Formats: sequence, C-alpha cells, structure tokens
Amino acid sequence: MKIKGNTVVFDKPPVIVGSAGVVGKKEGEGPLGSDFDDIYDDTSMGEDSYELAESAIMHNAIIRALSNAQTDITEVNFLMAGDLLNQCTSSCFAIKDLQIPFIGMYGACSTIALTISNASMLIDAGADCCVAGASSHFCSCERQFRYPLEYGGQRPPTAQWTVTGAGSAVLKSYGKGVNIKAVHIGKIVDFGIKDANNMGAAMAPAAAQTIKDFFVDTHTNAEDYDLILTGDLGYTGSQLLSEIMKVQYHYDIASVHNDCGLMIFDLEEQDVNSGGSGCGCGASVLCSHIMKQMKSGALKRVLFVATGALLSSTSAKQGQSIPGIAHAVLLEAQ
Amino acid sequence: MKIKGNTVVFDKPPVIVGSAGVVGKKEGEGPLGSDFDDIYDDTSMGEDSYELAESAIMHNAIIRALSNAQTDITEVNFLMAGDLLNQCTSSCFAIKDLQIPFIGMYGACSTIALTISNASMLIDAGADCCVAGASSHFCSCERQFRYPLEYGGQRPPTAQWTVTGAGSAVLKSYGKGVNIKAVHIGKIVDFGIKDANNMGAAMAPAAAQTIKDFFVDTHTNAEDYDLILTGDLGYTGSQLLSEIMKVQYHYDIASVHNDCGLMIFDLEEQDVNSGGSGCGCGASVLCSHIMKQMKSGALKRVLFVATGALLSSTSAKQGQSIPGIAHAVLLEAQ
Repeated sequence: MKIKGNTVVFDKPPVIVGSAGVVGKKEGEGPLGSDFDDIYDDTSMGEDSYELAESAIMHNAIIRALSNAQTDITEVNFLMAGDLLNQCTSSCFAIKDLQIPFIGMYGACSTIALTISNASMLIDAGADCCVAGASSHFCSCERQFRYPLEYGGQRPPTAQWTVTGAGSAVLKSYGKGVNIKAVHIGKIVDFGIKDANNMGAAMAPAAAQTIKDFFVDTHTNAEDYDLILTGDLGYTGSQLLSEIMKVQYHYDIASVHNDCGLMIFDLEEQDVNSGGSGCGCGASVLCSHIMKQMKSGALKRVLFVATGALLSSTSAKQGQSIPGIAHAVLLEAQ
Repeated sequence: MKIKGNTVVFDKPPVIVGSAGVVGKKEGEGPLGSDFDDIYDDTSMGEDSYELAESAIMHNAIIRALSNAQTDITEVNFLMAGDLLNQCTSSCFAIKDLQIPFIGMYGACSTIALTISNASMLIDAGADCCVAGASSHFCSCERQFRYPLEYGGQRPPTAQWTVTGAGSAVLKSYGKGVNIKAVHIGKIVDFGIKDANNMGAAMAPAAAQTIKDFFVDTHTNAEDYDLILTGDLGYTGSQLLSEIMKVQYHYDIASVHNDCGLMIFDLEEQDVNSGGSGCGCGASVLCSHIMKQMKSGALKRVLFVATGALLSSTSAKQGQSIPGIAHAVLLEAQ
C-alpha cells in the first residue's frame, strides 16, 4: 500500500469476496427490503434480551457473509467488529464461540468503514482472509442512549431511527467480488455540537472533511464517482454535508451523494423523522444492496463514507460536545 | 509478515522507538514509581470530571511518547487507542484535537496489546509511523462498572484495583528501540465465569490459551523468555494461569511469569486486594518500566500478554458470563 496524504491506496486491491446484510422487520419493510440476506420478523430474534438479539443478528451476518464467500471459518485470520453497546458487548457475544482471532474496534456509526479499512490493510500486510462487521439494534440502543422504550418520549424532527441490522464482509487478497481501491482513516472533527438528538449535524463536518481530504489526496472530484454514499447522516446531516462541501470546500457533490439512512427507510411512510442511523445502517446497506449493485454492474465506483458520533450518555450528560469522525472506503466493480 | 497458526511473525520487526507511561498518585507511590514518565498528585488531573481526567492522562502519555521518540505529531499515519469507558470516550476526547487519523479499538484490559499488535501489522503493511495507547482511571471506572465511590462498598479479596494510568508507544519500521518480533491476536475464551469481582478468573483461561498457542506456533516454551508478562490478572488470576498452564497444557511458566497488576502496587501495603487492573495497568507498566528494562539490557526477550474481560455492566446484570481474551506481543531488545 501507498499512503498519499491521509489516504491509503492499494497497488494490489483487496477484494470483498462475499458479504451479507441482515435486518429487522421495519428495515425489511423499507425500500431495500428485497436486497437483504435475511429479515427477522421479531425484534427479539428469539433471544432473552435485546442485547443478545443484536449479537444474534451480528452472528447471522458473519455466518452468511462467509457462506456467500464460500469460505470456511477456519480460513479466517482476523475478525474485526464493533457496535454501539457499552464495551462493544454485542460484537463480543456475537463471535465468542466462533474461535476466530478477534480485533475489537470502535468507531460509533462509522464502524463498518473502520473495520473494512483496517481489514484491507491487514490483507495488504499479508493476511489471507479477514472478516469485517458492525451491528446495531433499535431497542438495545434506545434504552442505552436515550429513554426506555416504554417511556414513549417524543422525538424531534432531527432525530434518527437506529437501524436494527448488521453487515459483514469477507476480504481476501484476490478473488471474484468488489475491489477495495483505497481506504481513508478519518481524523476527529469537533464543531461543538451538543444536541444528542441531532447526530447528523454532529457528523456532517467530519464527513465533509474526509471527502474533501480524499478528493485532494487522490486528485479526484465528485464526477469521478458513480455514488458518494454516507453511512447515516439522515436528512438533516445530508443537507448539511452538501452545504459544507459547497460553501467551505467548493465541491458540488449533491448529484452523486446518497445516504444509507435515507435509503433504508421510506421517510414519509415509516415515521423515522430524519432517517436511519446506527452502525447497522451503513453496514447492512453496504453489505447487501450496494454490493449487489456493484456485482451487477449498476454501480462501478463508489466512495463509501461512514460517519460516527463519538459520544456516550455520560459525556452528553456532562455537557461535552459531540466530536465526529468519518472513514472512507473506495470500492470498484471488477 | 508471516502467519504461523494464529501468530504473526515479522521478517522485518517493527520497532517501538519511544514510549511513555503516566500514572496517578497511588501508582506513583508503588514499587515502580521511579520508572513512570509522569505522576499526577491529584486524581482529577485538574479536570472537571474523572472522565476528562482519564482523557488528560491518555493525552499526556501520547505526547510524552512522541517526545521520547523524537517524533513530530505530523509524522503519525495512524493512532490506535482504547479504554474501558462506554463508547471509548476517554480515548476519543484525549485525541480529538490532535488531528491524527484515529482507529478506535476495544479489547477491555487487553487493549494496549491489541493496539500495539494492530499498529505493528500496519507498519508491516507500509505505514511509516503508528501510535498505540490505552488508559484507565480508578474513579471513572468504579462508578461506571461498580458503585459510586461515595457508597464505600466492601471489596472481596479477589477484587482488583483499577489503575489510574495510561501508556503509549510510538512504532516505526526502523530505528533505535525495542523490536516487535511477533504478535498474536487472541480468540475469545468463555469458561462461564459470572463473578464481576473476580476478573482474574475470567481472564486467566484466555491468557493460558494464548500463551499455549504462541508456544506451539513458534516452537518455544517458557525457558525461551526472560519474562512472560501478563497485563492484569492480579494474584488470583496469576495463580490460576500457572495452574491451567501446568495441568491443562503441561507447561511450567511460574519461574518466568509476572503480572503488571502484581508489580504496580505493593499488595501488602497498598490495600488493593488481588492487585491492579484496567487498560492503564499493563499499558503504563509496559510503556515505562518494561521498556526501560529492555533498553538497559536487563530484559532481552519478553512475551507480553494482556488480557481483557469482555463484559459490560448490562451483560453482567443480565446474568451473562464474562468471556475473556488475550493478545500477545513478543518484544526483543536490540
């Protein structure tokens, strides 16, 4: 690999040889329903707690991704995963019986871009096979970060709906699939946003900086991509991203930009306010719908930029700002 | 790099060219006091909350490590860090203004071995400079995982004392320092331990499996090391580790084994029950005392094995077991 600025460009691109996105009922009823690899009817996934339910969907996504990649679990050198639960327990319990070397990662909702980026670099270093994943669950997340579901708190228009879903990708140094041409690990950006019900605003500046830096490092601009896909900025964050890109950095990305949080739900029909969010939003959309589009040739060159809001309920209650981060992965159809 | 079994062996070993360990007052009064790079007199570190205090020691450890490595912050390609706070906020806030690409990692108390291992592989892949770090703080940790300090709960003999400290290491592909000969990413091991006041017992089986696997992969045994150093098993966990290694795997490591949790405090004088624990325990001891011993030639070949207990207060309250994980780093003096 070569590092240009803050962007890692691969001479020999690692390949996503298989992937899977699995989701809950509400996500299955959304516009991308037919592209997911599995849809649960029951938010408990048959488990005793929402936390274990989240582990179950993560486990399912990993097993299905391996199966789609026709790869045996014993071939995997490293598994990278993360989630939003305290101490990343959803990932830990999801994979604890798989007997794969486990690299726990945390990037909030940017996690799937972080795990795929790190996995790509480990493949480049000499690993034969890596698995990357991320998950979130509406019920485990809401009660941890906001209110108990039973409380029925009002949600402001800027609030997003945490996706119940998980995505996983299997990476190898060669094979049939989707190439990873470059990755970009983001820097933390803190604009001083403190409203935990407006994550889009907290994350948009980080997405803008990463996209701008990526453009500069690779001497490209919006026209060079079929799609610039953010993870879960939602409606508010997506508007802000376009504005920051235009006003601050003088790039017009609006015509090629979309956001997984806007794609996964029907914003008018599904009562999700500003759109979907959570690690599982970008992960499930990327690892199912987008991969299918790239394999069919409908999309050729996609810059995937997942964003994370680096807060905890403790930091929010202590009045701290919400720093954002965005990691990018450049995907190319074979 | 070459992967033998689950162990990554470097043909061209990455080098820790500088490091720093900083700690709180109690740790400074312990047997290793004179080796730390900085000791705080005040547990608040002059900050408004214990959480921000933890960020301050992490920030301090990173800056001092860079200074000891005579490396400018702009040279750093990737910074890897993690901690025990929910959503790793201590690391996020520690580095949010540093403008370095940030890879958030989570390995509970094994984090410093995880970040150093991942950093080593990224150096091998072609990065010029990586920084690895981990931190913990007694006060932020106690109130998050157990009870408010003011409650003054009784601590059982198996309980450990979370270290207030942080450690950071600067890695490059060449230079004067300590070589990283091999790294080993652990698998999760779950023996069904459920007592959150006995982390040593939850983590010892993972340490044993990683050490055994490392021995097998590298065709070595205890005699090949000056020191096999676990992160924070404490007294109970260390006893268990020796026993498992002997009875289950037929290796006698007792004569070369020590544990950072036993070294950082005087167990008889400092009222810490089974010893020190927390991400900052192994991180601060490794990045100050051990590095100094290796540079002076007192230690030549050290197998550092940090262990993590993969629980959250939610998983513990829901009656789940406490899975353990252990990552290993083989260090060699130049």
